[in-house]
This record gives sequence, structure tokens and C-alpha cells, in this order.
Amino acid sequence: MTPGERNLRIVVAARPEGLPRPADFAAEEGPVPQPGDGEVLVRCLWLSVDPYMRGLLDGVYPSIPPPAIGDVMFGGAVGRVVASNHPDLAPGDVAEGYLGWQRFAVAPGSALRRVDPALAPISTALGVLGMPGMTAYFGMTEVGAPSAGETVVVSAAAGAVGSAAGQIARIAGARVIGIAGGKAKARHVVEDLGFAACIDYRAEPDLLAALQRRCPGRIDLYFDNVGGTTWDAVTGWMNTDCRIVLCGQISEYNDRSPSLGPRRLKEFEVRRARQQGFRVLDYRARYPEGIARMAAWVGNGALRYRETVVAGIRRAPEAFIALLQGGNIGKMLVRVDEDEREEGGKR
Amino acid sequence: MTPGERNLRIVVAARPEGLPRPADFAAEEGPVPQPGDGEVLVRCLWLSVDPYMRGLLDGVYPSIPPPAIGDVMFGGAVGRVVASNHPDLAPGDVAEGYLGWQRFAVAPGSALRRVDPALAPISTALGVLGMPGMTAYFGMTEVGAPSAGETVVVSAAAGAVGSAAGQIARIAGARVIGIAGGKAKARHVVEDLGFAACIDYRAEPDLLAALQRRCPGRIDLYFDNVGGTTWDAVTGWMNTDCRIVLCGQISEYNDRSPSLGPRRLKEFEVRRARQQGFRVLDYRARYPEGIARMAAWVGNGALRYRETVVAGIRRAPEAFIALLQGGNIGKMLVRVDEDEREEGGKR
Repeated sequence: MTPGERNLRIVVAARPEGLPRPADFAAEEGPVPQPGDGEVLVRCLWLSVDPYMRGLLDGVYPSIPPPAIGDVMFGGAVGRVVASNHPDLAPGDVAEGYLGWQRFAVAPGSALRRVDPALAPISTALGVLGMPGMTAYFGMTEVGAPSAGETVVVSAAAGAVGSAAGQIARIAGARVIGIAGGKAKARHVVEDLGFAACIDYRAEPDLLAALQRRCPGRIDLYFDNVGGTTWDAVTGWMNTDCRIVLCGQISEYNDRSPSLGPRRLKEFEVRRARQQGFRVLDYRARYPEGIARMAAWVGNGALRYRETVVAGIRRAPEAFIALLQGGNIGKMLVRVDEDEREEGGKR
Repeated sequence: MTPGERNLRIVVAARPEGLPRPADFAAEEGPVPQPGDGEVLVRCLWLSVDPYMRGLLDGVYPSIPPPAIGDVMFGGAVGRVVASNHPDLAPGDVAEGYLGWQRFAVAPGSALRRVDPALAPISTALGVLGMPGMTAYFGMTEVGAPSAGETVVVSAAAGAVGSAAGQIARIAGARVIGIAGGKAKARHVVEDLGFAACIDYRAEPDLLAALQRRCPGRIDLYFDNVGGTTWDAVTGWMNTDCRIVLCGQISEYNDRSPSLGPRRLKEFEVRRARQQGFRVLDYRARYPEGIARMAAWVGNGALRYRETVVAGIRRAPEAFIALLQGGNIGKMLVRVDEDEREEGGKR
């Protein structure tokens, strides 16, 4: 920390309606906070922008109150410990936690996770070896539980969660079909990630028909990151004992009133289908196990990841808005410093 | 069997559109069929009319093809064995099976279930000790699995399945709230069946608000026999770890096109809710276990049942149409003979 250095925070300036606008956020300077008993001061190097943040701003999570107007924006971050009053973390350590969109953050040491920089670039602590990777890992292995030979469909297949979820199913021996928006994403999903196929929904006026062509034996497992009309199409083509892992609904987050769809109740009944809501924070205590598995697959090349990086903390709102519009391949990240080269991510 | 006696069958005369009409069925006389190798001839005494038959006529069940025009109507029946070429059944035995709406039926002995007339009136083999009772028993105990102190909501609570399902949850120590149509049903559900409360949806313009008043701690388990807007209301008030057992959708069966509703995907996600389609035929091998449990509860007064009886096989279509309009309390049955007094049901 340079003497005289100040904090920079991105705060919530207004409650977004529909798609957030840059003016819903504001940058604020302030003093660098000081850690109290058991607390740690972290210089954030990478900030996370994630789809769940849109619902968070609307207060949809019973366990996480939305930030108030004027509060720093809630979110995961990874950085270097500057000062520590907690025995598990020392200056120079890399730590990850819900530190918010700010350059300097203070948090209880018990709420932080120490990151091993030898395992992978530290930005992955917000992606494939962090919350999105754990979402994919526990959602797919514990809730979806694909078997060899099953047909698995993953939506938002080029995103941080979908790309990992589909590859985990592929590793389990399933035939994995992605759904993504645009040719570049669809190509990435097949050529780089090894999905059996990927439907570019922008090029398919009838998604159900496209699924029927790609999944002649119907769908055994759907990992849903999208909700809305994509859910409608998939649930029109379920196989017996179909499992649906409800992970996210990015297509619906900016809707000002809930859109309507078919309830599909008879289809669920006659196909003996199961739909299960999934919350990754329920697995926080098991992250070490999940990270070890994912790191091993990344290490041996079985699982690949990509990052889309926006440079400069002031551009975090822009990165978040782009994410909600699908403007990323893989994990969308904000590098706090505009021109930092010290600790980079990787493609 | 009286010499010269003829068979009487109710056949499907036309594919119903919307609510079935009497003219969609026809009565036909014919010869009494003769049992072949391994087969049994049964004189049917009681016929079942059940909500699932509406969907069956539309061909919604992958495992059961709908009866063709001119075929006898598909359905469960209980009666006396007249002649048998199967070692497990002898003339005079009582047997239950999918014998169709007819006075005399032939079926493989292996497809029939022997009924113990000492256990309860034989009509219960189509109700509380038959398919609807097993639907309630396995759907509630195996899929819903209520715990003591949980809040359970059951729709069509005065029907054959709902009345039993709610009582099974009550026996498990849950607080059970019924939903039913009309004052008489609501009173029956509370006073005779021991539910904690019953919402008369006809008297409640806002079902969600009524559920919020009756279930201040939200809903832990919903046993859904109704679908449609009732499902919409319940899924707007789910507790964490809510389970939804999808058993039937009687409110939707006569819709000519699927009605739309909120998908509730975010609610499922944040409440970690689970929705499971349930098919009772998957438990057919375990019926003896379920019947023994239910018979014990009926015997010791812990579980009550009621029957609504229509007399005369020619009135089976009328009974079926009335059932689809909610014109029954408890199990809706057709007594084959108009004035038979020999083997009655009970209230």
C-alpha cells in the first residue's frame, strides 16, 4: 500500500429497473479502512460480476439482503492481504471472499478463503476454482448426477457456470448438448469444451424442434442457467426420470413483471421428472473438495475455462451490464487496476 | 352367472373435447367372454371413475395407450371371480384390476389382485385400499415425506386421493391445510378428516392471501392434485426445502390448450424447492405393504374415508363427468347393478 493511497468503491446509486444502467452505480473515493479484531485488510485485484447480482439488487435472496442505496456493491473479489488481525492469513497471502466492488476491503478473516496461487492464476478463484466452478461442480454432481450415456442439456453453455457444468457431465460420460447465443459461443462450446453439439438459439426460431433433432432419445438432465422460454422448450422434451437443476434464470432477470409460460405439470408427472432448486452457498463448507477436483481436471486438461476481462474498477458496472446481455465468453471479470500486469488471468 | 346372461360394456364413442359429454360414450350388449389359458372371468360389481381417465383419453400417458373408438372404457373394477384358469384365483374370490367399464371381463390372472373381503367393504379396493389410497400413501410417504410440525397443503382435499394424503400427513404429525371447493367439502375435511383447516377456494378470491393467512410459516410440502392456478398460489408461498408432489391436475384436464402461469423458477432456486412427478403404478409391487398400513389406520379409526356412489353401469359416464366437475366427496364409484344390495360400500 502506497502511503496516502485512498480507497475507491463502486456504490449502488439507484435501484435498477429492468436492465441496469451505468447511472445506477457511482464511484466514490474514501479512506482506506482499518481492520479490527479478527479482521483482515485486502487489496482487491480482481472483482467478480455474476448474474445472481441482478436478483440480489431486487432482494430476491432470503438469506442476503440487497445493498442499500449508497452501499458498496456486493460481490466476490480476490486480492492480497495487506494487514491481518487473523491467525489464518498473513500479509502477502491471496484471499477470496465477498469483499464488494472496491479496491480496499476489510472483512473478518473467518469469512475469507485463502487461495493457493500455485494452483492456477488467482483470477480463477472467482471462476472455475471459485463460486461459479463450485456451482457447476456441486449442482451437476450432487443434484443432476449424470450417468454415462445420458443426454444432458446445459443452457448459457459458454458462461462461467454452464461451460464448467457441461464439461463435468462430459467427464461423467454423458452426451452433452449446449445452448448458447451466437455462432462464436456455439463454436467455442463444441471445439474448445468438447460438448457433443451446441444450439445457437439466436439462429433457431423453434428451440424445441432443435432440441428434438439434437436429442433423439429426449433429455435426461437439464442444467438451467437461463429460465424463461428456454426452460419451456426443454421441459417439452423430457425423458423419464428427467432431472432439472434450477441454477439461474438470466433470461428473466431484467423482466419488470414475471412472464408466463406453460407449467408442464402433466409432463413432470408422466415422465416422473424432478426439478430441484440449487443454491451453491449451501456447499460452501465443501468448496475445498470441489476445488481440488476441479483443479485436477484443469491441470490434466480434461476441463477448460476462458475469461473475459474488463480492465479498471470504474468499469465494473459496464462489465456487469454486458454480462447480463451475454457479452462474455467464459467468466466475466474486472481487473481492478487498468494497467496492472503483475497478476493476470489467462485465456 | 345366470344362464343366457349377456355382457354390458361402456365403450368410447367419440374422443372428448374439453369436458366429456355423455354422447362420448355408448352402452353395448354382447356375449360374455370366455377365459383362455391363465385367464380369469370376473363379474364386475364396482367400477372406478378417476381423474386420470381424462388424460388417458387424450393419450397423455406414455405407458398406457388410450382406448380406441369402440373399445371398452379403460378403468379399474372389483368383482367376483366366475371362472378361473389361473391357480391364484378361484370362483367366488374377489379380484381387482384394470377390467374396464363392463359387467363381465376377462383378464390374465397375473394382472389381477386378490382382495380380502374381511378387511373392509370390497368397494374400498378401488378407493382407500386401492389405487387412490396407494397414490396417497406412496406419494405422501415416499415422495413428500412430511415431518412432525411441518405445514402440508393438499389440494382436492375432499377427493379420494387428497383426503387420504392429508390424513397420512396428519398421522405423521404435520399441520395439514386442505384446499377444496365448497362449504360442505371444507367442513368434511376439517370435521371428519381432522385437517387443521380447509380453504374453500370458491369463497376465496385470492388463494395466495388465504394460504398466507393459514400458513404463517410458509408451506413445507404441497401434494398437488389440481395444478393450474392452485399450483401458482402455493408456489408463491414455499418455505425453504419445500417439496411438491405432482400427482394430478384436475383443474386443467378439460382445457383445450395449455393455460399459462408463472414458472416460479427463481422461487424454486432460492427456496431450494423440489418438484417431483409421481406415478402410482411404479409402486404396484409394493401395494400389499401400503394396503396393510392403510387398512390398519382405517381399522383403528386414524384414517377415514367416504364414498359417493352412482348406481347402474349405464351411468358410469355421468359419474365420470360429475367427478371432473367436483361432484363427489371421497371416492366416486359406480355400482354395476342398479339395485344390488349384496355387497355395498360404506360411508
